[in-house]
Amino acid sequence: MKGELIFGVNPVKESLLGSRGAFNLYVQISATDHRVEKIIKLAEDRGVAVHRRDKADLTRMCASSHHQGIALEVEAFRYTELDDLLASVAQTGAPGFMLVLDGILDPHNLGALIRSAACAGANGVIIPRDRACGVTAAAEKASAGAVETIPVAQVTNIAQALESMKKCGYWVYGLAGEVSQSLYDVKFSGNCVIVIGNEGEGIRPLVRKQSDVLMSIPQFGGVGSLNASVAGGIALFEMARSLR
Amino acid sequence: MKGELIFGVNPVKESLLGSRGAFNLYVQISATDHRVEKIIKLAEDRGVAVHRRDKADLTRMCASSHHQGIALEVEAFRYTELDDLLASVAQTGAPGFMLVLDGILDPHNLGALIRSAACAGANGVIIPRDRACGVTAAAEKASAGAVETIPVAQVTNIAQALESMKKCGYWVYGLAGEVSQSLYDVKFSGNCVIVIGNEGEGIRPLVRKQSDVLMSIPQFGGVGSLNASVAGGIALFEMARSLR
Repeated sequence: MKGELIFGVNPVKESLLGSRGAFNLYVQISATDHRVEKIIKLAEDRGVAVHRRDKADLTRMCASSHHQGIALEVEAFRYTELDDLLASVAQTGAPGFMLVLDGILDPHNLGALIRSAACAGANGVIIPRDRACGVTAAAEKASAGAVETIPVAQVTNIAQALESMKKCGYWVYGLAGEVSQSLYDVKFSGNCVIVIGNEGEGIRPLVRKQSDVLMSIPQFGGVGSLNASVAGGIALFEMARSLR
Repeated sequence: MKGELIFGVNPVKESLLGSRGAFNLYVQISATDHRVEKIIKLAEDRGVAVHRRDKADLTRMCASSHHQGIALEVEAFRYTELDDLLASVAQTGAPGFMLVLDGILDPHNLGALIRSAACAGANGVIIPRDRACGVTAAAEKASAGAVETIPVAQVTNIAQALESMKKCGYWVYGLAGEVSQSLYDVKFSGNCVIVIGNEGEGIRPLVRKQSDVLMSIPQFGGVGSLNASVAGGIALFEMARSLR
């Protein structure tokens, strides 16, 4: 296996329509659905080799029975190393501006957050390797191509990554719904990192400890919390606006 | 049929876990998948009648072959009439604050926008009846329950709805990526409507004509445009903040 395996009708179709390299398409022997036919046509048009496999083989390859009779081997996303990212930002001489995501699970949210970080002029996005969504085909699609314009680093431990960044002169601003400090009253300056927690539980205790400032977006009504990608977008643009 | 028909394994499951009334579950005669079994259990726990139908019947009922052998009849979402919404806001004596969505297609975006409108303290959301996503089970889920806390009106013609609102003393602020007027320099006051266009094309010409102010969110880099729900969230909170 050269890359990663994507499976299911929609993810495979999206991936074939995307820009990442695709190597091999695996189709269940009995699959004759018109959607599957369309995918085979897409693969052939891109010069991707098509192989027939039986259902049990596909289930074993995908480590899941939810493959809908189709799987695609694609080039793995190329993550940046955190050290390289920090070094390249330091070289520019301008203050650094990073987004750290502490365990975003939904690919739509991850894609939208990467897109917002790019549009806000951030230098990079840092995500954890485990218990979080990676830059999958769905996340890439939701980013509307932004994953090609901003480096994404994947780290083993977010709290340690923040510690390294603090040693490099970064200030850490964590978004936490329940604190009273308003985002709009925070003075951002120098090298800034904004930390967004996961959809359900927010930022974790060890990550919270690494935050120099905890802040929230004042709410004026409703259900009490914003969608993680919307909250991240608001915070990123507020920071971008006060840094320029 | 008392309400609307939702089909497919995930939408039906989400709907059974949600708060909207459910009347009848239709299951394909041959369906014995463990996910289908789980859904039947959920339906029985809620006292929803379970009926077996053959595949062709389900395809006819759903007007689609993508039902995955399962369909659920649920209570239709209760939209508010625009006139009633405007009248109830006028009665409060406080300035009105509305969100108009000109053709949002994605249920995740619609749900997130309704959630943001509720959290920003808006009085209501107005969406078009055609060529737009309605308050489906997926949108309701993405709103994290916000559809229960803020009225949503569905209108035939958004441009006409804006004209009615202007007659009631509303100022119309349209978000349009390409204009140079920055959102941050706009002075919001009185009764305000913010208009967000659809994911691909933004606000349409006739709707644009009804806007008193066109404004954009300044971009600092990247792919040039934000996700519609993120852009809407930023604009809603900027408006909320300057109105309070």
